[in-house]
Amino acid sequence: MNRFEEKTVVSEKIFEGKIISLRVDDVELPDGKRAKRELVDHPGAVAVIAITDDGKLVLVEQYRKALNRSIIEIPAGKIEPGEDIAITALRELEEETGYGANKFEYLQSFATSPGFANEIIHIFVAQGLYKIDKPAAGDEDEFIQLYECTIEEAEEMVQDQRIYDAKTAFAILHAKKLLKH
Amino acid sequence: MNRFEEKTVVSEKIFEGKIISLRVDDVELPDGKRAKRELVDHPGAVAVIAITDDGKLVLVEQYRKALNRSIIEIPAGKIEPGEDIAITALRELEEETGYGANKFEYLQSFATSPGFANEIIHIFVAQGLYKIDKPAAGDEDEFIQLYECTIEEAEEMVQDQRIYDAKTAFAILHAKKLLKH
Repeated sequence: MNRFEEKTVVSEKIFEGKIISLRVDDVELPDGKRAKRELVDHPGAVAVIAITDDGKLVLVEQYRKALNRSIIEIPAGKIEPGEDIAITALRELEEETGYGANKFEYLQSFATSPGFANEIIHIFVAQGLYKIDKPAAGDEDEFIQLYECTIEEAEEMVQDQRIYDAKTAFAILHAKKLLKH
Repeated sequence: MNRFEEKTVVSEKIFEGKIISLRVDDVELPDGKRAKRELVDHPGAVAVIAITDDGKLVLVEQYRKALNRSIIEIPAGKIEPGEDIAITALRELEEETGYGANKFEYLQSFATSPGFANEIIHIFVAQGLYKIDKPAAGDEDEFIQLYECTIEEAEEMVQDQRIYDAKTAFAILHAKKLLKH
């Protein structure tokens, strides 16, 4: 979709980090005027709506330095270059929760912050969960607390803001819909 | 919530823009080791789930340079320093859609990309919509196409990725829930 396209006139690289990079683009607007766009490049991420056989949502608590607090989210992780996103999602599920899944399906992809970032998060649904004997270890700088919650408990966590991110809010509504069928 | 707190040892400012800024923090992990966190500071945003009296969702199409395409979203905008967020949300609704609302309620707040950004989006629900005679004009670098869609039409737009962001995906599920009651 190209409606109202903004053509890049000049792109200035500001920062290239291990995960994100930052550039400022001068763009030409549809009326010929110019504007500046501050843009973050991100490799993208996967996230998993994992539902146990007794209808509980698998969640992880993790400290998020950007927010200076820990929050409770669905399992998620960055895409590794060259790795199939379904493989990444299954690996993140195993590393963060110890679960494997007999039923694993792609659901949807979303931009998380389209105003300034190109991060896309690819959402999967995992059901038929089973505990893996010796699950792979996660990143060494990741510290995680595992939860299994009913939808009602998860909704309470939204109310008191222990759950505080868009993908998890979406996941709860989607899981609720799935569990009703 | 401070579980697994990461204490800042050094914070290096990389970029300060008009909208976002970027810093790299050296943090001390719970096990005493060090890690680097690349972090984007953002002023935050508001978004409005606006539902017409005949049960349609009000949506706007807009070019998003970060994605190099236009996408269809619920009306949204950045928070202005010092402005009450409900006022910002009503103003964005007026500027982007020409609508006022007789019923306007705060719903929820979310981090959009907690892995690297502190952007929080505050979601409101607008009902009892009425057209404003001479609505305030929006930002001069914003070009917008207005839509009013049934939930089914919006769900189709998710399927073909014309709708492609997390807040709007959440909004559709929430509006669907509201309209069933």
